[in-house]
Parts: sequence; structure tokens; C-alpha cells
Amino acid sequence: MRLAELSERSGVSTATIKYYLREGLLPPGRQLNATTAEYEEEHLRRLRLVRAMIQVGRIPVATVREVLGHIDDDSLGRTIRLGAALWALPQVPEPDEDDEYVRTAHRETTALLDRLGWRNAEQVSTLSPAYRSLVVAVAALHRLGYEWGAEQLAPYAELMHRTAVLDLDNMEAYPSEPEQVEFAVLGAILNEPVLRALHRLAQEEESARRYGFE
Amino acid sequence: MRLAELSERSGVSTATIKYYLREGLLPPGRQLNATTAEYEEEHLRRLRLVRAMIQVGRIPVATVREVLGHIDDDSLGRTIRLGAALWALPQVPEPDEDDEYVRTAHRETTALLDRLGWRNAEQVSTLSPAYRSLVVAVAALHRLGYEWGAEQLAPYAELMHRTAVLDLDNMEAYPSEPEQVEFAVLGAILNEPVLRALHRLAQEEESARRYGFE
Repeated sequence: MRLAELSERSGVSTATIKYYLREGLLPPGRQLNATTAEYEEEHLRRLRLVRAMIQVGRIPVATVREVLGHIDDDSLGRTIRLGAALWALPQVPEPDEDDEYVRTAHRETTALLDRLGWRNAEQVSTLSPAYRSLVVAVAALHRLGYEWGAEQLAPYAELMHRTAVLDLDNMEAYPSEPEQVEFAVLGAILNEPVLRALHRLAQEEESARRYGFE
Repeated sequence: MRLAELSERSGVSTATIKYYLREGLLPPGRQLNATTAEYEEEHLRRLRLVRAMIQVGRIPVATVREVLGHIDDDSLGRTIRLGAALWALPQVPEPDEDDEYVRTAHRETTALLDRLGWRNAEQVSTLSPAYRSLVVAVAALHRLGYEWGAEQLAPYAELMHRTAVLDLDNMEAYPSEPEQVEFAVLGAILNEPVLRALHRLAQEEESARRYGFE
């Protein structure tokens, strides 16, 4: 397809597409002559991903470039490519290891992983931003006087594991590995608001079932 | 307890406590004489809630006052008090009903509730910010070319319902209705980052189980 069609099918203006091309966020089309290039379905897919990261995820262009670099690096295995792409997305700041609540949260989080038998998560815990985010979030609960530990977190973690199984099953429905990795990154950006809204709606439903509307 | 002890036990400075008292976010203590007041456990609990809303939730003081008003209004039933308190928290903007993706998202969301048998959620759907958030999030997916509908959303919704059952079971472990409603609001602010982090960590765990670290 030509630039005009790529723009129409993606809903992204030709000026923005040219900007993404200049910034290296979109690979160049096949040049037909000095002024015309031909684009493929692959360009359309990549364009949607870039737009989701920039417009929905509000991710800076330099970070988008970094994430795309990990997605495209097929010298890495799938777990590492997925991890590297997701780990480049914006994360919570480093926890303050001198803070007593952070130390308690580390203990509770380690106890949780042990209880769940999440051996892989334990293995990468010193590297993983997801692990750090969990420590920061648990420390915030403790600081406010809510002593949530491994015991209270475990049933939630089991449900989130079942959610992750769904995510990867959906990802594997895509035919090629590049599409799968792109889908995983998109899911991390676009699916979170869906889950948050479903969770709130489910709370309303369950509350009405238990207590009615009186 | 006196102001100094309330400050020490909550980790909130006496100046900030006095500010919350002036703003009506904290009920006055029992005045012992012109300069000394006595505070109860109930003040400590309310102080933690206010601090969570302002410092963690970044919720404006006027909104905090509104949420507390709903929590304290015992002329309302529990579902309505819970709803009113949660609905006053910051929400996504109204969906644009003229947008074709929003209309599709409405259809898919209605079909989803029907499929799930969430009759209560259907009944309040025109009022509920959670419903509107879901429509906005689903419309964003469609706009980016991901045609997620009732069928794809249903298994996620079932897991979020099980999460909501846990939430309400935990809430009911608190002895009084005011404590329960406060816990629900705190959960909406503090538990979301925990769930998000658990979900990411579960994705890493499941990915490593399926594909190893190669």
C-alpha cells in the first residue's frame, strides 16, 4: 500500500507517519521511485503499536525506540525479549532500601513467591521492575497501617497468575513471534485499563448481590 | 490520645493534622480544655484514609471531603454508600457517544454483561463510572485495530469477579460498617498498584515456565 492508504487504514496522519519514519520508529517502505514507497501489513501493525505506546501509554519517543529494539532483537529468546520490551516501559522508582517498610515488604514479597512456588520470579527478582513495583506497593500499604503480607496477597496472586495464563494463551494465538511480542507490549499498555474497569464493575455487581440496593 | 500521640502513631505531622481538622477532613477531638483535645482510634483510622487519598491517590481536598461525606452518610444502604464513595474518586472522562468506536464498545460491553449475567451492573450501567471506563478502554482497543469483544473479555471478567469476591470477603472481616466502607475506598486506591505488579510478575513467571530463559 502507499502512504495515503497506510494513513487511512491506521487513522494516523501522513505527517505523523513521516515523523515516525524519520525517528526510526517505523521501518522505511520499499522505495518505488524518488517520491513513492510501498508499505506492507507489517508497517500497519507496527504503526498501531507505536501509536498505542505514544498516544495511550504516553511513552517518550526514545523509550519507544528502545522497546522496539528489544522486540526486534531475535538473537534473544522469547522470555528475554518479552521481559526486555516490558522492562523498558515506564516503571516505579527504585524502593529506598533503608526504609523499614521497604525491608518488611521485601520479606513479605519473598515469602509470597516462596509460598506460590514462583521459582522463576524468585530467580529474576533482583532484576525485575515488576518485583520492585510490588515491593513499593506493599511498603505503601504497610506505611498506612495495613499489614498485608504473603498470606493476604497469595489468593490475589493466584488470580493474577490465571490472568497471565489467559494473556499468554491470547498471545500464542498470533502466528509469528514478532506479532506475539508486539501483542504482549500492547496488552501491557491497553489491557490494564480494561482490567481495572472490569474489576470495579465486578465490585459493584458483587456488592449489589450481597447487600442489594437498599 | 493527645495530638502528639496521634501524630506519632500516624506518621502525619501535627501541622498537617491541624490542617485536616480545619478543612473538615478529620472530625474534631473531644475538647478537654482550651488548648487540649482527646482523639480516639477512630481518628487514627480516618487520618490514615485521608493520607492515603491525598498522598497516594493524589486526590484533591474537595474530592476527599466529598468521598468522606458519602462514607459517613448512614442514611444510605451499603451498596449505595460504597458506590457513592468510589464514584466520587477521579474517573475517566465521558465517552464521546458520537464516535463509532464508542458505539461498538457500548454494544460489546452490554453483550458482555448479558453473557456474564451481571444483572446489577446492567441496571446501574448508565450511572456507573466503572461501566463508562470500560467502554472507553474497549473503544481504545478497537480504535487501534484490536477487535476485542464480549467473547475475549468474558474470561477476564470472570477472574476480576473472583478478585472482587476476595475484596468484599476481606472488607467484611472488619467489624463495623464505617470501617468496612473506609477499607473499600482504601482498597480502590492502594490495592490497584499491588494487583498491577502481581499481574506483571505472574506474566514473567508464566513466560519463563513456557519458554524458559533461552
